[in-house]
Amino acid sequence: MANSSHRYCVIMCGGIGSRFWPYSRTSQPKQFIDFFGTGRTLLQMSYDRILPLVDPKNILVVTNSTYYDQVREQLPELESDQILLEPARRNTAPCIAWAAYHIAARDPEASMIVTPSDHLITREREFEQSITRGFEFVEKHDALLTLGIKPTRPETGYGYIQIGPRIEDDILKVKTFTEKPNLELAKVFLESGEFFWNSGIFIWKANTIINALRTHCSDVSSVFDLGEESFGTPEETPFINKFFPACMNISIDFGVMEKASNVYVECVDFGWSDLGTWSALYDNSPRNRDGNVTQNCSVLSYNSSGNIFAVRGDKLVVVSNLEDYIIADSGDVLLICPMSEEQKIKQMVNDARITFGDKYL
Amino acid sequence: MANSSHRYCVIMCGGIGSRFWPYSRTSQPKQFIDFFGTGRTLLQMSYDRILPLVDPKNILVVTNSTYYDQVREQLPELESDQILLEPARRNTAPCIAWAAYHIAARDPEASMIVTPSDHLITREREFEQSITRGFEFVEKHDALLTLGIKPTRPETGYGYIQIGPRIEDDILKVKTFTEKPNLELAKVFLESGEFFWNSGIFIWKANTIINALRTHCSDVSSVFDLGEESFGTPEETPFINKFFPACMNISIDFGVMEKASNVYVECVDFGWSDLGTWSALYDNSPRNRDGNVTQNCSVLSYNSSGNIFAVRGDKLVVVSNLEDYIIADSGDVLLICPMSEEQKIKQMVNDARITFGDKYL
Repeated sequence: MANSSHRYCVIMCGGIGSRFWPYSRTSQPKQFIDFFGTGRTLLQMSYDRILPLVDPKNILVVTNSTYYDQVREQLPELESDQILLEPARRNTAPCIAWAAYHIAARDPEASMIVTPSDHLITREREFEQSITRGFEFVEKHDALLTLGIKPTRPETGYGYIQIGPRIEDDILKVKTFTEKPNLELAKVFLESGEFFWNSGIFIWKANTIINALRTHCSDVSSVFDLGEESFGTPEETPFINKFFPACMNISIDFGVMEKASNVYVECVDFGWSDLGTWSALYDNSPRNRDGNVTQNCSVLSYNSSGNIFAVRGDKLVVVSNLEDYIIADSGDVLLICPMSEEQKIKQMVNDARITFGDKYL
Repeated sequence: MANSSHRYCVIMCGGIGSRFWPYSRTSQPKQFIDFFGTGRTLLQMSYDRILPLVDPKNILVVTNSTYYDQVREQLPELESDQILLEPARRNTAPCIAWAAYHIAARDPEASMIVTPSDHLITREREFEQSITRGFEFVEKHDALLTLGIKPTRPETGYGYIQIGPRIEDDILKVKTFTEKPNLELAKVFLESGEFFWNSGIFIWKANTIINALRTHCSDVSSVFDLGEESFGTPEETPFINKFFPACMNISIDFGVMEKASNVYVECVDFGWSDLGTWSALYDNSPRNRDGNVTQNCSVLSYNSSGNIFAVRGDKLVVVSNLEDYIIADSGDVLLICPMSEEQKIKQMVNDARITFGDKYL
């Protein structure tokens, strides 16, 4: 790892986890929960996974300022200057832009991996090899590298990346990014062998992404260019608190990746799930002998299978004649909903807000 | 009410409410819960209902010693000597025997109504008239009077009383007591006009039931005869604590009513339910516009009706695609069970005991 001192990691940790409401709440989103009962939260697992690859001092966590205490508590190893606190939620492009400007000011030669904090990766050895390979690639090329996951089923919940010409080994030119497909299309994607899941994990040099932002997403880069001399100085935090909220709300995919020409995909297969849905959580969790998945609770089940029980506070759940439901309990909210209807939960959260205000969010 | 100073009421209040587990718990059985959100618990409603009929000083509550504090709290009007504390659970015959010996020692002319504390009665004016009529009858006759409810549906959850010859007005000789019938038989009962629901409410003179116990249930009466001179004296409590547990566990129906020849039924119609089942609670509770019944919680429901939500602690329940279920939550236990399977809850409670000990009872 000759270049490892120039390698950085940015863990994005600002999500509010509304898709797992009420099990995850605005006050404790998904990344801060020990989803698998292993003793480590998803954020901690993300940190642990990157430790063999990056100098611990080069790991940054970007989160919303409301989550500062939770990050400090879960990752006490971090110095406070390793936690970048967004004063407002502005999606991934402003988040990544800030991290890139911050890192570039500290180390103009820096390369960086950007990773969500709430995904599951099961084969860590393959992960290490893939990330190392990706760093090596972007250190040699002026490349925006995204990680594409070899699909294992016709998943309709993910975006896909269509591959173009091979550059070297598992790294190929990106042909297109696609939206979430319907089931028929997802089956075609899977069979073609040309489509990979868009993981939301990126590797690039800090200056490569800054240049790409300036070219394709100047609404965002212009804000950070305003404060260029403040990064890495005591002026950075006041600058961010004042100007970050002025950034437009835009994703890095839409703002940069779908527009830039130097976009590459590394095709990887390290046991990945974005855990973005209850179904994904169910699929990635060990089942008990009745075919139910249990989070943090005891279950007595009768003629019931295919359910996921996500219940806080060491509770006993007794269930009879229920198939393929989500049962989620946060103490003051109980949700009972068929797994097939989980896309409606967002509307339910909204209805709860309309009816009861913020009390149950 | 010329005789009212000789009229007593015995409210039986020792049930453990296992059929509404986990909404009711051993630590707070059904009679102590404000089931209808009216501000009065079932016990308090039972007390209120009897107040116009009996001198408040002549109202006794018989309960298990573990519920003393709850009775005191819910009925602060009672003097402590109006609460008879059973040192053990021994079913209704020993409970009623003690109350009868206690009352007879105080007033040899006493008549008494014995009533459960966890039933619902909706037409209190008819109740008052019926009870007054019943007192008048037993004060004139050496009669064991039970109240039979005019059935309104072929209910399979109740015992029935078959009527014999009419004695006067709505009071008839009892022909037989029957066990809970199957549905076909219940329909025959309903159509015949000869069968009434066995309410478990009794009226008799204290000495009439004592004599009947001596004749038909001497296993029980012999225990109380042992301590006859202690009733109404400071010796009563030590006597009960020592000898009550020696009583056999037997119901007054089985021990006396099914055997005695001087048994009569007053046919009444005052809007009665024993609230012995979730279905009965559902049937007797106001429904919201979605057809769900809600106890103590807020509900957002989607494509869901016929459910009963009995949830402690002002919780929000969000439910989608659920029909005719019981959703009961006591804080540390959540039950989700089809209403049609409620007879299996007893087994579930037992399974919980086997698996987790007394923790969740």
